[in-house]
Amino acid sequence: FYDIFCPPIVLFLTEIKSNRQGMRKVIHSIKAGIALVLVSLLYLLDPLYTQVGQNGMWAIMTVVLIFEFYAGATLSKGINRGIGTLLGGGLGCLAAALAQAVGGAGKAVIVAITVFIFGAAATYSRQVPNIKRKFDYGAMVFILTFNLVVVSGLRAKQVLEIARDRLSTIAMGFAVCLFVSLLVFPIWASDELHDSLVSRFEHLATSLQGFCEEYFGNVDEDEKKKISVDFSSKCKSVLHTKMKDETLVNFARWEPWHGKFGFFYPWGKYLKIGEDLRDLATIILSLKACLMHSSESSTRRRLAKEPCEAIVAQLARMLRELGESVKRMKKCESEDKIVSKLKTVRQEVRLIANLSTVGMNHLEKIDGLGIAS
Amino acid sequence: FYDIFCPPIVLFLTEIKSNRQGMRKVIHSIKAGIALVLVSLLYLLDPLYTQVGQNGMWAIMTVVLIFEFYAGATLSKGINRGIGTLLGGGLGCLAAALAQAVGGAGKAVIVAITVFIFGAAATYSRQVPNIKRKFDYGAMVFILTFNLVVVSGLRAKQVLEIARDRLSTIAMGFAVCLFVSLLVFPIWASDELHDSLVSRFEHLATSLQGFCEEYFGNVDEDEKKKISVDFSSKCKSVLHTKMKDETLVNFARWEPWHGKFGFFYPWGKYLKIGEDLRDLATIILSLKACLMHSSESSTRRRLAKEPCEAIVAQLARMLRELGESVKRMKKCESEDKIVSKLKTVRQEVRLIANLSTVGMNHLEKIDGLGIAS
Repeated sequence: FYDIFCPPIVLFLTEIKSNRQGMRKVIHSIKAGIALVLVSLLYLLDPLYTQVGQNGMWAIMTVVLIFEFYAGATLSKGINRGIGTLLGGGLGCLAAALAQAVGGAGKAVIVAITVFIFGAAATYSRQVPNIKRKFDYGAMVFILTFNLVVVSGLRAKQVLEIARDRLSTIAMGFAVCLFVSLLVFPIWASDELHDSLVSRFEHLATSLQGFCEEYFGNVDEDEKKKISVDFSSKCKSVLHTKMKDETLVNFARWEPWHGKFGFFYPWGKYLKIGEDLRDLATIILSLKACLMHSSESSTRRRLAKEPCEAIVAQLARMLRELGESVKRMKKCESEDKIVSKLKTVRQEVRLIANLSTVGMNHLEKIDGLGIAS
Repeated sequence: FYDIFCPPIVLFLTEIKSNRQGMRKVIHSIKAGIALVLVSLLYLLDPLYTQVGQNGMWAIMTVVLIFEFYAGATLSKGINRGIGTLLGGGLGCLAAALAQAVGGAGKAVIVAITVFIFGAAATYSRQVPNIKRKFDYGAMVFILTFNLVVVSGLRAKQVLEIARDRLSTIAMGFAVCLFVSLLVFPIWASDELHDSLVSRFEHLATSLQGFCEEYFGNVDEDEKKKISVDFSSKCKSVLHTKMKDETLVNFARWEPWHGKFGFFYPWGKYLKIGEDLRDLATIILSLKACLMHSSESSTRRRLAKEPCEAIVAQLARMLRELGESVKRMKKCESEDKIVSKLKTVRQEVRLIANLSTVGMNHLEKIDGLGIAS
């Protein structure tokens, strides 16, 4: 038995270990398993079961629904669920009391009308972009709780008691999630956002140099095509980061103080730098388009080779330096140096401007980034 | 009472009517309200309540959780929920039976172990990109159902009966969702995808012409800047459509035959054309970058004005024609004409190639699109 199962598992583990993202997925899965077992103890241990009874179901549901990959996501979903349950439960109790006061056949009519009005209104609010981004889950929980409370209020006598019991088990589920998510190998959205931003500087520098090499280098056509596709895809991967950035910033805002990130950390700036980097990626791609289809003669190309390569090398080094300074979260030490260097480079570029006019725009952008960091 | 509430509502409705997207949001909200009221009837009507009892709760939950904006999204979530519940319930019953067979203190241990293993495995599978895209919700429901069934199996005697009752109420909730989503003013993801693709052709044509006008036209600087930002944002909106396209195609695949879309409609091609259009947007943006920073003298610019404007006008017309042919879902009638015209234009461009070398690449792309449609 041992011999059959061990080797593939060991192989799996060593393979996983070599790649960090895969490792984190495994850690998250194990954490989810732990959280589920912990919350199942409400059923498994007799003393706990006598306390909560069937309501333990709500704790299990809470864990399944709010336990997310990033600590910030778990927190935001949990808080959303709490607020949604409280609001929905409160309003549901009021509506149920109103229906009871009317009594008779009017009871059902009042319940139906309130269900329709609150359901439609909350569904509409879920489609407003600002609410959708932050409180989508909360609005859904609100609809669910409101509906359940108001219709059971029609049948059960002790609505308030039911609401209290469910709320306390939901709180238990939330506590289990918080404990496992924040204290056992936490996976922070803020770290992910920070690393992804830093790696984009590197990507852009690499593809900038790659295109230059492709244009001036002496590689044969097939090889060239392969390299070109590779660099283009790196550049394009930077282009398609808008959605991911917005999601991560949203989660990062919820995360408590940890590691190098304090309270009130300026997450909005990450969005701005990300936007600048996407613009830069567009410019680099367009530089490539210009180069690939230019009709320059080979003599002229040979003449331009040296200054161009020097400029590109310098631009790439600057990008890397900026990335490094973002990584260490220090003001770029050589900022003044970079800005003055950029001005020299711009003069040089102007001299050979008829070669590649795109460079200029490019330089201005990097300027902006220098100031942003 | 009537006088106070009516005017703002009428104002609201007339304002909404003027914009189609807003109208659809209101329709969706009203549909959600109707679905909620319908499913609440399980509690409100006595003959129904005696049949389903407290299990009506599961029908309400199902409606709240799976009723989505697009018909395809509702269908895919509903089917996911069904499969997840069946699988989770079945495996949960097996695990509960196994635990019962062991008996004694081993019971709780076996339950804890199965909860951990299935919970961790399903959570891991939710992070595999292919499964995440299509079955994320199903995997979540699987974890939830498995967990609930296996832990209640420890306490309740009639697990199978509970499972059957819940499944039937979930099916009722799904039926209500399907009825309201597909039959009452359905909102199709396929229509949305189709329209958004068609409008992108128009956006690109407009911004191409806009840039040309900006370069050659006699507008003052302030005005220029305003126009430029406007066109750039149009182009950039095309760039950031990747995620939206993928989501919509995913939903569109689930939608049954309706309107002009048959079964086995080639939704994959929409992704491909979308990718081409994004490339084209990059090229147009780079063309703009080249133009804005070119150091052409004004005499040369005046010389180049006429041929360039003619070419851009033709390109824009072609883009619009292609968009129109996609819209009508007909093979572009003038396809041969367009291709041959493109070749003539390319010859012309080659003559004034030193002006704007980007045009060439651009033409090749449109060629590709002509074939794709």
